[in-house]
Order: sequence, then structure tokens, then C-alpha cells
Amino acid sequence: MIGITLGDANGVGPEIILRAYAAKNLTGNFVVIGDYSVVQFCNHYLSMNIPLHCMKGIHDYNRDALNIYDIGILTTDNISIGKISQKTGYASLKYIEIATKLALANELKAIVTLPVNKEAIRGTSNDFSGHTGFIATLCNISNYTMMLVSDKLIVTHISTHVSLRTAIENVRKEKILDVIRLTNAALKKLGKECRIAVAGLNPHAGENKAFGTEDAEEIAPAVILAKEEGINAAGPLAADTVFYLANKGTYDAVVCMYHDQGHIPIKLLDFESAVNVTLGLPIVRTSVDHGTAFDIAYKGIASTASFNNAFELAKKLI
Amino acid sequence: MIGITLGDANGVGPEIILRAYAAKNLTGNFVVIGDYSVVQFCNHYLSMNIPLHCMKGIHDYNRDALNIYDIGILTTDNISIGKISQKTGYASLKYIEIATKLALANELKAIVTLPVNKEAIRGTSNDFSGHTGFIATLCNISNYTMMLVSDKLIVTHISTHVSLRTAIENVRKEKILDVIRLTNAALKKLGKECRIAVAGLNPHAGENKAFGTEDAEEIAPAVILAKEEGINAAGPLAADTVFYLANKGTYDAVVCMYHDQGHIPIKLLDFESAVNVTLGLPIVRTSVDHGTAFDIAYKGIASTASFNNAFELAKKLI
Repeated sequence: MIGITLGDANGVGPEIILRAYAAKNLTGNFVVIGDYSVVQFCNHYLSMNIPLHCMKGIHDYNRDALNIYDIGILTTDNISIGKISQKTGYASLKYIEIATKLALANELKAIVTLPVNKEAIRGTSNDFSGHTGFIATLCNISNYTMMLVSDKLIVTHISTHVSLRTAIENVRKEKILDVIRLTNAALKKLGKECRIAVAGLNPHAGENKAFGTEDAEEIAPAVILAKEEGINAAGPLAADTVFYLANKGTYDAVVCMYHDQGHIPIKLLDFESAVNVTLGLPIVRTSVDHGTAFDIAYKGIASTASFNNAFELAKKLI
Repeated sequence: MIGITLGDANGVGPEIILRAYAAKNLTGNFVVIGDYSVVQFCNHYLSMNIPLHCMKGIHDYNRDALNIYDIGILTTDNISIGKISQKTGYASLKYIEIATKLALANELKAIVTLPVNKEAIRGTSNDFSGHTGFIATLCNISNYTMMLVSDKLIVTHISTHVSLRTAIENVRKEKILDVIRLTNAALKKLGKECRIAVAGLNPHAGENKAFGTEDAEEIAPAVILAKEEGINAAGPLAADTVFYLANKGTYDAVVCMYHDQGHIPIKLLDFESAVNVTLGLPIVRTSVDHGTAFDIAYKGIASTASFNNAFELAKKLI
């Protein structure tokens, strides 16, 4: 069974799960981890009339309804559509925590997360660095990477939500090798050929140390070590060419040195339907690759494409 | 009259000019600045039979032939197809030098450059940092920027061929304002709406200084100053969204903080036909956005798309 965390109650999470359910996009067993009151409110608000089932326990599954594992934190009075709220922020964090624990206890085979709002969460939890880091901490894991998957391109990252200066400091041989390994293992699970390109950090991958030394001193040795392990890796390759090549089909994934290096090409090629996957966890976790979209919340117009893809990808990775 | 520098004699430059001429892609008066012997050799080698005219001076123009302003450095014996050669590297630098001087003397209205090989040139000139910097030095200009233009996207850069560490140091309010101004002036000449997006440096444009301070302290103030001058600028905008928006038509150009930030999206959208323009020079200079492509030189298969676009863009910018 797959667990779907509801995300921030004031955002597009609740309607995305309801609309994906109504469109019969989701096959197999799945359960919403969140507040029953919120799903019920959204169901009425958008006049969707979807049969809901408030589970009495994780095994109380009803095949003829949308199953909700009720966390019982929020009431309908706590919902303020499209607004930042500490209350809904706190609840969204609890959904993730409980879903992760259920997955660690093998009650869920995978979790698919709907968007939370960082600002709302930071009101209650100062050290919240993001969804992915929070789950990794719950799993007691420090070696993980964010993979973004679209039909056209797959990227993984050496670092994500840190300054570009800090990202450069993170470009270290050991970390790069770790991410190449995680990328290779994920590609295998996805049934891909596992041809991995490793992007350079500096322009033209440093052009023989003419522009920076990291490409020659950190990235190239990591690629050599990966090859010695039998991984089909190449690089460092000039970042302005490698995504073009990967998109053309020359590579199955690109290991990226910093957040925007991977995010720019994937968002350009596939803005709405990319999926975010955390690699390196003891559980399977995929996520939509968009935010709470407060400006269009509860209007019934948010795209369900990224969510549908996240759900399908979770099934492949189980 | 437009001057076209021949580029490295061992690369794809000579055949690109001959094939573009044969296809009648080039309208208006233009002259090749290079070695007559090289063009003649390529003409025979590819059995093109294009009428060539070796000019006796820059005003000796023949309407019924491809005009070549002969620099007289290379003989056919100096040509070694697809190889790095100091001799052809040196000659390619001379073509640029002479073309730039002719343009500064108003004998040429614009120059369009075909590719040189940096490694070949570095054999003879240690301080060669690239085509653009060489021309800027000849023009005695330090405030310039590289603009890349495709049908789908236009980008300019705060810096280009420096390490990513150095690029971060270059993200300074004054420089950003300069590049916004140059971008605005170029968009006006191109008849665009001049809606300029300024990309952030850090992930999510720093997310209120959560990831780095440059977005708030250098980029945001530059955008405010630009607006005060009446420029329609916005930013800093998250780099993973801004190119998607520009490609959709929300903005006419994106000011980028470093080489790959601008090069990744434009090469992904338009690998073969983008044009490189140097803004800030007292002369008009456009260039193909590709290299010497030694691996396919003299095979008659190199795409002329970027060159044709560079030629057309030069005419618009005159």
C-alpha cells in the first residue's frame, strides 16, 4: 500500500488527490495520510462527492472509497485557503512524520508527498530545511540525493538547498561517487541502461584547469572510481552540452553539481510533470515537483500531472 | 558592408561560408576576411566551383563572386584538416584583428566571426582568453557582455569564461546594472518589448537569504536602480523558473549570473542555431555559437544555421 501525505491544507494538495482519484488515475492500494476534516472540506467545497473512508487503523481499507488515515490535528475552522498558517504547516509536518514511520515499519511500501509550505513550517520548526532533509533525518540517513525525473531527462544533485558558494564546497570526490552510485542503483530499478553523465562544475568543465580546478581534481577522479566499480559513467562533461546530449538519448541521467544546474534544464523541458525522488533512503519516497500554489488553491485547476507521475514512479521503485 | 572572419583554416569555417554563399543565404554586401588560399582550397576540395574574387583593397568589390580580403598568411601547405595548428591559430587571430580594425575605421559596418580554436591560438598567444575578450581589448572596452540569441530565448551574462568561484565574486550591483542596460539597448535595436528578467544566483533566488546573500544584496538593488532608469526589469527570479517563463514569452531576455546559467537553457532549446553577440563594443559583432568542429571539418556537413542567423542578426544590429 502506498501512503500519500496530504501536504499543506491551505494549498493544492487536497484537491490534487481528490481530482486524481476522481479521474481514476491511481491504480493499486493507497491511503491518504492527513486530516480527514480537510479532505472532507475540500470534497464539499469543490462539489466532488467522492466517497471518503475514515480508516480506523492502517489495515481498515475500503476498496470503494478514498481511504484517509486521519491524523486528527486540524478542524475545518483551521483551513484558510491560500494563506500561510502555522497550524496547517505543523499538521503537514506531522503527516510526513507519521507516513515515514509507517513506511519504516513496513506498513506502507512507499510514500508520495504533496507540497508543504516552508514558511508555514518554519513558524513552528526553526531547523526545517525542506521535505527531503526532514525525511532523511527521520530515517537517520545522511547520504541521500534529490533525483528529478521527467520523460525527457533524469537528474540527480550533489547538493540542493544551499548557497552556490556552499555548493562549490560540496563538490568533493567522495560525495560525487556516492551520488553516482545512488543514481546507478535508481536507474537499474527503473529499467534504464544506466549510462550516467557527470556534469562539470565550471564553464567547459574547467577547460584543463583554465577555469577552476574542481572538475579535474574532484569530479574526474570520482568518475574514474565509479568506472572501476563497473558503473557506466562519463565526465566531467561541459554543462552546456550534457543536458542536450541526455535529452537526445545519449545518457540516461546527469549527475549535477548544484541545485540550478539540474533544475534549470528539467524545468525548462518539463515544467509541470517532473517528479522528485529521494534516493538513498531505506524507504521509497517520491514527490510532486511543485509547491503549494496558494494562488490557485481550492479552485480545482491545479495540474495533477506531477502527482500522477510521482505515484506511478513510486510503484516502479518499490 | 559586413566582414566575415574565416576562423581557423583547419575547422568548419571555410566550408560554412562557401555553403552559405552557394545556398544564397546571404543577402547584401559582405566580404570574407581571411586567406584567399584557404577559401580557394576548400572550394576545390569540396568541388563547389564558387566564383571567388581576391580583393585588391577593401573597396574592390565584385558583385558576382565571393569577395575575399586576403590576409596572405597561409598557403595551402599550411592546412592540416581537423588538426590543431599554431600556424592556422595565429592566422585566425590576425583575421579578427584586421576585421576589428576595419570595423573601427568604418570600412565594415559589422563583423561576423567564424570559429577559432583556443588551443591553437594559445600556442602563439598566452593571454588569449577568447574571441570576445580579444575583440573587446582591440576596441579598448572593458564593459561588455556576451548575449546569446535564439528564436526561443535571449540571454546575457555577468561573466563567462571564469571559474564558478570567480563568477560569484563578479555578481556585483554595478556590473549587473551595466549588463541590464546593455541588454535593454540591444533588445530595443532588435525591436523587442524589452521586458528583462534578472536571474537569481542561489537556489530559489536565495529564499530571503536562507541560501546566500548575493540575491538580496547585489542583484535586487541593481534591479531597483535599473527600474529607476525606466528599464522594465524584474528580479532576482528563481533560475529554475525564469527560463521557462522567458521561453513562454513572459520576458524578452534573461540576465544570467554565470556562463552555464545562460548557456544550459539556450543550448538545450536551440543547440545548433543560436547566435553569440558581443554587447558594449563600438562595433557590431556577432558570431556563430559553436566551435571549429575539427571532427567534421571539410566534410561539407557542418550546419550553417548558426552562421546564417549570426549574419542576419548583424544586419539588424547595424
